[in-house]
Amino acid sequence: MEHYSCEGFKATGIASGIKKNGEKDLGIIFSTVPANVAGVFTKNAVQAAPVQLDKERIKSGKSQAIIVNSGNANCCTGDQGLKDAIQMAKLAADHLKISEQMVLTASTGVIGEYLQIDTIKQAAPALYKALITAQPDDGFKDFAESIMTTDTVPKTVRAKGEIDGKPFTVIGVAKGAGMIKPDMATMLCFVCTDIEASSEILTDCLKQAVNISFNRITIDGDTSTNDTVIIMANGMSKTSIKTDGHKKQFQKILNHLMTDLAIQVVKDGEGATKLVKVVVKGAISDHDAFKIADTVANSCLVKTAFFGEDANWGRIIGAVGRAGVPIEPDSIDIFFDDVVMVKDGTGCGSRAEKEATKILKNPEFTLLIDMNMRGGSASLYTCDLSLDYVKINADYRS
Amino acid sequence: MEHYSCEGFKATGIASGIKKNGEKDLGIIFSTVPANVAGVFTKNAVQAAPVQLDKERIKSGKSQAIIVNSGNANCCTGDQGLKDAIQMAKLAADHLKISEQMVLTASTGVIGEYLQIDTIKQAAPALYKALITAQPDDGFKDFAESIMTTDTVPKTVRAKGEIDGKPFTVIGVAKGAGMIKPDMATMLCFVCTDIEASSEILTDCLKQAVNISFNRITIDGDTSTNDTVIIMANGMSKTSIKTDGHKKQFQKILNHLMTDLAIQVVKDGEGATKLVKVVVKGAISDHDAFKIADTVANSCLVKTAFFGEDANWGRIIGAVGRAGVPIEPDSIDIFFDDVVMVKDGTGCGSRAEKEATKILKNPEFTLLIDMNMRGGSASLYTCDLSLDYVKINADYRS
Repeated sequence: MEHYSCEGFKATGIASGIKKNGEKDLGIIFSTVPANVAGVFTKNAVQAAPVQLDKERIKSGKSQAIIVNSGNANCCTGDQGLKDAIQMAKLAADHLKISEQMVLTASTGVIGEYLQIDTIKQAAPALYKALITAQPDDGFKDFAESIMTTDTVPKTVRAKGEIDGKPFTVIGVAKGAGMIKPDMATMLCFVCTDIEASSEILTDCLKQAVNISFNRITIDGDTSTNDTVIIMANGMSKTSIKTDGHKKQFQKILNHLMTDLAIQVVKDGEGATKLVKVVVKGAISDHDAFKIADTVANSCLVKTAFFGEDANWGRIIGAVGRAGVPIEPDSIDIFFDDVVMVKDGTGCGSRAEKEATKILKNPEFTLLIDMNMRGGSASLYTCDLSLDYVKINADYRS
Repeated sequence: MEHYSCEGFKATGIASGIKKNGEKDLGIIFSTVPANVAGVFTKNAVQAAPVQLDKERIKSGKSQAIIVNSGNANCCTGDQGLKDAIQMAKLAADHLKISEQMVLTASTGVIGEYLQIDTIKQAAPALYKALITAQPDDGFKDFAESIMTTDTVPKTVRAKGEIDGKPFTVIGVAKGAGMIKPDMATMLCFVCTDIEASSEILTDCLKQAVNISFNRITIDGDTSTNDTVIIMANGMSKTSIKTDGHKKQFQKILNHLMTDLAIQVVKDGEGATKLVKVVVKGAISDHDAFKIADTVANSCLVKTAFFGEDANWGRIIGAVGRAGVPIEPDSIDIFFDDVVMVKDGTGCGSRAEKEATKILKNPEFTLLIDMNMRGGSASLYTCDLSLDYVKINADYRS
């Protein structure tokens, strides 16, 4: 797996003892030289300690390491939580012999319990040792495993690009599963690239990429107190973003890479058995199209129908109607993949339903809603609402 | 069950054959004299044919009968649907020998199939016969049964009031279950009273009562294409609303009666095992308090935690944080009934959690979120998200 290397970056993950089951729960990413950095954080008004810390530190535009734990979100932990996050970063900084201001942190797991900072302190030398001996291939995989909570698979992706014939590499790692499992504070994504780019360019590109990737997926509509996306660019490839054209080339690759990670997250959604792309077109505006797609993709009734493999367009049209944007009910067409189920707001009958039901039996399909009004469009990915989702999230005691 | 009578009103319900299982599916309410009327209808942009018809007819402020079917929502049925709704009203009008403009209609059931108008036509004489021979006691019960879809129990309530020592009666009937079951278009409520009140007064009172009853319950956050609440007042008691004081007295009784019906609807929510009152106080405004309560009450994660009897305050605080209103995370207190679970935004430890878990084992409890900011408050009722909800709504084929 040579293909996980990205010049100047090292990563690893170990089991520190935070997770009681002995699984990996502490990871680190390190750039051998200071990197330019940008971040996007949760819009939830309740923000975990590491989010508060990172938002301050990232203002300098420079970082060199990110230390991450799973098993504890370090959220709703007050002043002690912030002290713990600072201490966690300092442990990494001391071993790496860099300024603690150059270290970011992230946490994911149970909300409301104090971080096991002593456990992390004891594990820090082992983490450092694992990092310096890590092979580039295994390192990111171990890191990806160390940030998992209810995820069933680690999520990584790599892309190679070229600017004016000069190559660069981007590596992305994410975790997600249910938007938030029990009391799990969830979505994390870290992107490393050896391209040379200012933190302003990185911020622009990251925001756009998040907007078309992680902001276009939904599992249960809940958002986390810990959601964090960070990109570090260390310039080691000597390939630079100098013009708007270069920026566009990089943006395209970043969009693709983060969309890939976002789809991996939905596919691994808690209890998910279906990956559904919801596409809305013909709306009055892109904004309206997004509101419609979002309402449909988050409807419990639509999502249980997906689970039941039931081509239940009545629920879909009901969700469209409550999206809060102007619509013309008699103009709506609905397709499952290439099967027309609804034409001009009325059903196409039992034969169409039979064909649509076949589509719904697939693990992946597209639901297209054509509003036939104007040119507004949007798409997002969702999954079904299954019995396992409820079991997982009820801490089901059978 | 003498107590279901209300002077001048008759009601009944029969099995017409729309429902294939032979259950009651056609009902009628009739006032022997023209009544003043008011209605509140779904805000969904997709509106069923009977909703479209009623909204027109109710403008006159007068009605004398409501004919209702279950098993078919007559929604997304185009021009034919509207013709069928008009025809359904005419069938009632012809038998009752009143103007068809004085008849309202409502439908609930499958979306997107044409109404079985021939079945209704054939059943109309039997419906009329049942109405004229109906005992006041059984009549409303039969009517309540005839409008059920996934409801497991009929929902009726009666109240007696007095104005200046003169009595009046109010009877309410509702159906609800899941906000919308599979392709079921859902919530209906009909209120009959022998008080004397103008349609303007009725409109004011109904809007306020809906606002604190049916607008304060949530099962799955979906809203229906057919939601309809109608009140008819026939003045037969000779008790009149003449002053603002009278209006307030009537409002109080109506609020109480419709809250009772709304709670019956949530309790009978699809798969529901818990009735939870979510109370938010200390918010910046009542509006903010409602947004917080609504976000918490609709969170899939909070609702599955209720099902799991898990005092998972991390999910609650996560939902509070994404309500989209200004909050102070470090000021939040959370109680389950009288047990403090969270104080100043941090958990009260395992002993509190143990006590809270006991509360969660009850079929009914209150979740109180005190924002400790200002005086804004709101409350609403919700239920848990259970395995049965998913089974019912997935059309589970085991």
